[in-house]
Amino acid sequence: MELWYTEKQTDSFGITAKVKRTHHTEQTEFQKLDMIETEEWGNMLTLDGMVMTTERDEFVYHEMVAHIPLFTHPNPKHVLVVGGGDGGVIREVLKHPSVEKAVLAEIDGKVVEYSKKYLPTIAGDLEDERVSVEIGDGFMHIAESEQEYDVIMVDSTEPVGPAVNLFTKGFYAGIAKALKEDGIFVAQTDNPWFKADLIKQVMGDVKEIFPITRLYTANIPTYPSGLWTFTIGSKKHDPLEVSDQRFHEIDTKYYTKELHKASFALPKFVKDLTE
Amino acid sequence: MELWYTEKQTDSFGITAKVKRTHHTEQTEFQKLDMIETEEWGNMLTLDGMVMTTERDEFVYHEMVAHIPLFTHPNPKHVLVVGGGDGGVIREVLKHPSVEKAVLAEIDGKVVEYSKKYLPTIAGDLEDERVSVEIGDGFMHIAESEQEYDVIMVDSTEPVGPAVNLFTKGFYAGIAKALKEDGIFVAQTDNPWFKADLIKQVMGDVKEIFPITRLYTANIPTYPSGLWTFTIGSKKHDPLEVSDQRFHEIDTKYYTKELHKASFALPKFVKDLTE
Repeated sequence: MELWYTEKQTDSFGITAKVKRTHHTEQTEFQKLDMIETEEWGNMLTLDGMVMTTERDEFVYHEMVAHIPLFTHPNPKHVLVVGGGDGGVIREVLKHPSVEKAVLAEIDGKVVEYSKKYLPTIAGDLEDERVSVEIGDGFMHIAESEQEYDVIMVDSTEPVGPAVNLFTKGFYAGIAKALKEDGIFVAQTDNPWFKADLIKQVMGDVKEIFPITRLYTANIPTYPSGLWTFTIGSKKHDPLEVSDQRFHEIDTKYYTKELHKASFALPKFVKDLTE
Repeated sequence: MELWYTEKQTDSFGITAKVKRTHHTEQTEFQKLDMIETEEWGNMLTLDGMVMTTERDEFVYHEMVAHIPLFTHPNPKHVLVVGGGDGGVIREVLKHPSVEKAVLAEIDGKVVEYSKKYLPTIAGDLEDERVSVEIGDGFMHIAESEQEYDVIMVDSTEPVGPAVNLFTKGFYAGIAKALKEDGIFVAQTDNPWFKADLIKQVMGDVKEIFPITRLYTANIPTYPSGLWTFTIGSKKHDPLEVSDQRFHEIDTKYYTKELHKASFALPKFVKDLTE
């Protein structure tokens, strides 16, 4: 018997991946969690039937969420990751020696638990002494923070289920308050082929709050369309004006110094969404 | 009843698209040709069960094959497209006013015939008076040409079936002979997630023949992994050293002047394949 995981990324298009076995399946307090082993991508975490991360291609998303803002900020010390319970963004954050404290605010403790168990190369660094894992509502964590963080990264699911609040203007205003006077935030903002309206809406909202707003992309083969976007809001530092001295050597598989700026050169139809 | 087209892009991963109807299906002299109408992508041409082009996302591939070499060459007049029977690359080539003659060498006349019928927005410009459609073996056309073309574009299928010869060192040597003394060629060279060895091999072969060799990428959602590569071999002009005056306004949905250079900034794991 052959088992295949099929994800309808839209009503009429999707991906399908051959499955070796199901490690765990559970309806948590917040969402349906499945951890499966696939032939092509290794272990794969899905939430509410959507791929969150896989062992084989996770490096793209995690590197590109972390290193663009962290190389843009001249001296990031205090970092907050909202969501991101698999630990991949935290692992990349810790590659920056300036970082003294990294807080992970993940609403669903089960994501952390099963990532540690089945995605150890991704979640392993959650044990690092610089990391503080707080199981709770990221929206509330933001609301209660003031001038506290240099960089905030929103590593959420799609705007359904527990992440709905994380795509609202009120949330971005809260982030601005939680950031220091030269703080930067980044959020994953889905793909331009099927979710153009979402990108437009987020860009519009963030532009009203942050003086510097930019969109960049990365290729993630297990995400819808393969082309993913990230929206940056920054109070002072421009990701396109990072000096060459700012970069230091880190071990990556996707991010490079050249790609840092090139990832902001958008296809015409994507650029049009930002204007 | 729901019909879904499923393409196994590897033994254990693929895409699936909801089908409205099958317009045409035929075993041609060279390959299995299917023209189907999908909900998400409009009409879709597949050859031997692989997506060649769709009405909705075709612009990415066709623009990126054509405009990178044509804006790199200072005065492209004579252009050859090997393969490309759907006519999409030709349509983009004709946007460059310097082009006097564009030859299409497509081995399978049925591809041209059914593209004209079911993909008129892609194939329409094959009727242009600057275009010469030659149904025949592109490999032989190349072998018989000498110092004839400014730019040659290889818009082939994967290296199976009729396109096997188009991924050989002998073919690239033939291209070098068919090009004028400052000619440029570009070939689609599949994706780095599943076909890393092919990219490495082509880069190695082309490097032995052309003094300037470069790889660039584009996002094509209906192609395996969504990340597609193109290999350039050039005798004189470097795509990374195009002067700003060279660019002129053309109507595009993907290509931009900024993306011209940015598309050569490769993810680290892809860059490693070129070294």
